Amino acid sequence: MANDFTRQRSAAEALPADLADGLERLRPEAAHAVLSQMTAAEAAQVLIELEVERATRLLERSSPDQIAAWVEALAPNAAADLVARLAPERRREVLAGLPLAVASAVSALLRHPPDSAGGIMDDRFLSVRAEQTLAEGLDRLRTSPPRKSADVAYIYVTDEAGRLVGVVGVRDLLFAAPDRRVHEIMDPQVHHLRVTDDQEAITRQIERYRYSALPVVDARQRLVGVVRITDALRVAEAEATEDMQLMVGMSGEEQVHTRWSAAIGKRLPWLGVNLGAALLAATVVSRFEDTIGRWTALVVFLPLISAVAGNAGVQALTVIIRGLALGDVVRGDAARVLRKELAIGLVNGVGLGLALGLIGYLWKGSLVLGIVAGAAMGLNQVVGVLSGVLVPFGLRYCKIDPAMASSIFVTTLTDILGFLVFLGLAAFALRAFGL
Amino acid sequence: MANDFTRQRSAAEALPADLADGLERLRPEAAHAVLSQMTAAEAAQVLIELEVERATRLLERSSPDQIAAWVEALAPNAAADLVARLAPERRREVLAGLPLAVASAVSALLRHPPDSAGGIMDDRFLSVRAEQTLAEGLDRLRTSPPRKSADVAYIYVTDEAGRLVGVVGVRDLLFAAPDRRVHEIMDPQVHHLRVTDDQEAITRQIERYRYSALPVVDARQRLVGVVRITDALRVAEAEATEDMQLMVGMSGEEQVHTRWSAAIGKRLPWLGVNLGAALLAATVVSRFEDTIGRWTALVVFLPLISAVAGNAGVQALTVIIRGLALGDVVRGDAARVLRKELAIGLVNGVGLGLALGLIGYLWKGSLVLGIVAGAAMGLNQVVGVLSGVLVPFGLRYCKIDPAMASSIFVTTLTDILGFLVFLGLAAFALRAFGL
Repeated sequence: MANDFTRQRSAAEALPADLADGLERLRPEAAHAVLSQMTAAEAAQVLIELEVERATRLLERSSPDQIAAWVEALAPNAAADLVARLAPERRREVLAGLPLAVASAVSALLRHPPDSAGGIMDDRFLSVRAEQTLAEGLDRLRTSPPRKSADVAYIYVTDEAGRLVGVVGVRDLLFAAPDRRVHEIMDPQVHHLRVTDDQEAITRQIERYRYSALPVVDARQRLVGVVRITDALRVAEAEATEDMQLMVGMSGEEQVHTRWSAAIGKRLPWLGVNLGAALLAATVVSRFEDTIGRWTALVVFLPLISAVAGNAGVQALTVIIRGLALGDVVRGDAARVLRKELAIGLVNGVGLGLALGLIGYLWKGSLVLGIVAGAAMGLNQVVGVLSGVLVPFGLRYCKIDPAMASSIFVTTLTDILGFLVFLGLAAFALRAFGL
Repeated sequence: MANDFTRQRSAAEALPADLADGLERLRPEAAHAVLSQMTAAEAAQVLIELEVERATRLLERSSPDQIAAWVEALAPNAAADLVARLAPERRREVLAGLPLAVASAVSALLRHPPDSAGGIMDDRFLSVRAEQTLAEGLDRLRTSPPRKSADVAYIYVTDEAGRLVGVVGVRDLLFAAPDRRVHEIMDPQVHHLRVTDDQEAITRQIERYRYSALPVVDARQRLVGVVRITDALRVAEAEATEDMQLMVGMSGEEQVHTRWSAAIGKRLPWLGVNLGAALLAATVVSRFEDTIGRWTALVVFLPLISAVAGNAGVQALTVIIRGLALGDVVRGDAARVLRKELAIGLVNGVGLGLALGLIGYLWKGSLVLGIVAGAAMGLNQVVGVLSGVLVPFGLRYCKIDPAMASSIFVTTLTDILGFLVFLGLAAFALRAFGL
């Protein structure tokens, strides 16, 4: 019985994912030594579970022959992921050391971006011809190489040109009369993906229609692979991680165990952008240095208004980024979302403005200061939610990932406008009341 | 052929998910009218696709008989989700109107929290007894009610007391000699969930071991249900959304189309907490009003240092929250994570500190100001990453969700300590150099 239950429990009952966890805690030399002790199949399974950066460094320490053995032990889509991590020259060496069939399957997958349906799909699937009998189809199922049982829940149906024309459930195939033709019992309507579909489209389709797998067709409607929901789940997790990280100026790929030196390379540039953006806000403050010099109590409220409005903006941003990722926000929803956020900003602005106004009055004993701080807080709530809507939709309009550094942009916008409103009101009050 | 392909395409070729999208854009009365036009099966499918709040309001407008018809048309786990949204009295009325078997299945599921394995699982699954012959097992498969083909990829094996003892792939069942016993070909090692396992444990197991479904056992090891990967994918998406929202002080349940009035109730309280926390930071600034009055250029750098250090803290926080959610961070990793973040904070601190020092010197023409601002920026990077580590681990230590309002806590901590460092250094410089 060669299913995945038994396969996964080799290497003294440890699972590849668990072994990978262990390896990530070792130094590269030690990890490579452990890997070399395993069979090719075991090592290959562990390698694909490792985080990308770690796997790449282990591959760099390995000979092309060793890598070719690992690649051969993997399913083509996993093999392609592994080969994609190699430097171009090393990649050619490894491909040259592989049996022709494996090398060509891997090369075909490498032609698609790794996060497209073509890059995620498994090119091993079961298909039958529409004009075959069910008995022929069943025979096909029986003689196909042993694999995970879940793989055979659906069998896809193609025409003589290899184009996807339908789908048959294994059960329907089993329990109908064996002399009937496949096209008689198949469902001619089959949801499918195109090789060029991106991560988000895949997750959305699989989640929406609740299939355990979706067939993938090329530009000529030919069936070329299958994307399984297990792979879609990984993609969905990676996508959520990426959005969370992109928002705060990170690469989207950093993991907890990523080396600090690699993490700095991803984080520092965005902190530099953040510094530049904050300098813009600082120039606004600088223009009001006189005002602040004459009324130092203002300075106490400056970071306060910035903090709460920034967070209000990031709240709106978070809902929208997630809504875009999950497909809840479609073209034309911008106006509707803007109205909702404006309503929230106005109500929260009144509430928080009154609260801060009262606090300012009681704390510093100045009614004017209370009014200025409260009004600035209230207005800045509106500025916050507006930024939270405009930044992601604006980035998307510019064909940039709407999550990209978005929280940096939102907080900078609220800072700049918030400081202008607050210090502008204060300067006006100073002049008007001759304080 | 009664599989899900055909069923999903009723109601003029529209899919429930698409119809739900449409309904979410209608007013409640109109949406209820549309729902009442559909067959019970169609309406039920659409209802479970709707966002929770919207579905609840539609249910409030419907009669117990109408709801009972919808519930009966759903799989028990989806039915339980629907019934869970009803007020207690209405819930009793609906359950009373259901056939006994349906009512008891739904009630059983309602006993488990909705985000536990017991709440997510489907109680319709195929199982065979270990001592049966394969022919008997196959017969079981043939006579089971028609359902999605994917459901029958694995058949679970139980002993005479109903305890889970193994698993058999459908293919293994099909192509072995029919007079063999199930226990001869079953895999006795079967990964499973307990009814009490939470969302995160489920996602982690399914993703880790790449199964399309996992069996669920009760406290006595009896097989009681199956969690399918399609449901796990939804759970994983919801979990990621929740973490992103919790971090910035939201409920974790808000969607783009959530009504603004409902959204305010979730966001405003946390903005209030944010205001309170920011007031703490403001009292620090207040203590240095004299210093600032004598050296107003300081005020320009105050929000700048706060912004960049806060973001550095949220970067560290994001990696850790996601690492905790995906199970990459385990007990004992805290020290290791802290070392990594400290290294990042030190290097980024030196880089950004030098940059701001130079900028401060060139902009304001004061070497002392450059040194004070640069040193504060550098130190505050370390404060930022420390907060980013300590807040989530601290929350988890207190048995609170580590994401809960964590970015508010991190930015407040960096503000308080950052202002202390910056203004403290400035006050010292004022005294030391008699500026």
